[in-house]
Amino acid sequence: MNSSPIVRICLTPALYPIYKDENSIVVVVDIFRATSAISTALHHGMKAVIPVADINASAEYQGNEYIHAAERGGEVVNGFTYGNSPLSYINNPEVKGKTLVLSTTNGTQAIEAAKNSLGLTTGAFSNISALTHWLANENKSVMILCAGWKNRMNLEDTLFAGALTQRLLQRGFAFDIDSDAAIAAHTLYEQSKNNMHEFLKDSSHRNRLSKLNLEEDIDYCLQHDTAEVVPFLQDGKLINIFHS
Amino acid sequence: MNSSPIVRICLTPALYPIYKDENSIVVVVDIFRATSAISTALHHGMKAVIPVADINASAEYQGNEYIHAAERGGEVVNGFTYGNSPLSYINNPEVKGKTLVLSTTNGTQAIEAAKNSLGLTTGAFSNISALTHWLANENKSVMILCAGWKNRMNLEDTLFAGALTQRLLQRGFAFDIDSDAAIAAHTLYEQSKNNMHEFLKDSSHRNRLSKLNLEEDIDYCLQHDTAEVVPFLQDGKLINIFHS
Repeated sequence: MNSSPIVRICLTPALYPIYKDENSIVVVVDIFRATSAISTALHHGMKAVIPVADINASAEYQGNEYIHAAERGGEVVNGFTYGNSPLSYINNPEVKGKTLVLSTTNGTQAIEAAKNSLGLTTGAFSNISALTHWLANENKSVMILCAGWKNRMNLEDTLFAGALTQRLLQRGFAFDIDSDAAIAAHTLYEQSKNNMHEFLKDSSHRNRLSKLNLEEDIDYCLQHDTAEVVPFLQDGKLINIFHS
Repeated sequence: MNSSPIVRICLTPALYPIYKDENSIVVVVDIFRATSAISTALHHGMKAVIPVADINASAEYQGNEYIHAAERGGEVVNGFTYGNSPLSYINNPEVKGKTLVLSTTNGTQAIEAAKNSLGLTTGAFSNISALTHWLANENKSVMILCAGWKNRMNLEDTLFAGALTQRLLQRGFAFDIDSDAAIAAHTLYEQSKNNMHEFLKDSSHRNRLSKLNLEEDIDYCLQHDTAEVVPFLQDGKLINIFHS
């Protein structure tokens, strides 16, 4: 009898060295807004996303085929046209067919931390169904790595981790002795799934974004299945490997 | 107008360097079983508890007034009579009036990490009411530091952190922008408070203890208010500072 693949959650990148293992596909999550932006960009015709943890590394990519985007503390970095708002990448002829070089406060740092795992993909509510489908087919254990906020846990990434956990459990995944965070996130999601906006109203990063007038981004990032893609890291680039 | 004191939670000692601040009283939590044992020992007449992170340091305390206890991986360490079972310290004439020198897998490590904070106390369901009362009177911000399991988060410490958060909110404490973990733990506690045994049945450490036939300990550690004490760290010793 084959044993079930396991689902586990690492609540912040600071804990990743403790939780990481050789046998899991890692799903990096940064709901507000890096991984929401990544799936949106790929869904709307961008060719690839190159995550760069260090903004300076962005300059290595020169040429017409690159669009440079950088965000720190919720705002577009000076000198960049694009940040991590998913809305920038929807029906935008300027970016279609191009490669996004993206540096963000938390999301790209989490990708950097886990880049040598068995496989690395990114998850957001925008691509949750495509991702679930693909992970279930792969049938390997999954580690959901929440990007959090400057190594603190945050609510929105935890809720998404719970939502993905719920879907994976329905597809035959199981908890193991190292799944306490997954049990917690799953319970939080079940408790809040019908009023996620309300539940997040006191959350730290939602408040940060609200102060920056990013309510429209928040609404978009909590919508399910606006992007039918699975971004997968290959040779330093996230490309879509999902085709329905 | 005075602002409300803040309640925050740090889910594992590995995150403590990120969350720590100068202005909070730290409540160390290790429900199964170090902090349950500490409040029980003090309530049942032990004079003080000296937490030692390193077992070898235990040997520095020689003499009739000391009782030595050490636990690793849920079991009493070879050569020690006592571990971290709270039940060992109830109505036990051998230990009454003496000082417990205690080393455990997680709890005493968490105490070590936070020993230089504004003030350090320990919390468990056994002393939750006394602790709430004392913290509310102090009227300072509170950081609940969960000991977890080898730097992973665990469910039972998180639930207790949620329970204490709930009580502190009722006493005028508030969340701040760094309270996402406290919001999560509070929700988990509200969701599970009427069936905590059931909720913890899949948790990692409960399973570890069940395998060691420690169900009686689990039941005891989930009982509320069996110990009317507030253990407070002074000169390296936890002594009871609560007198009703």
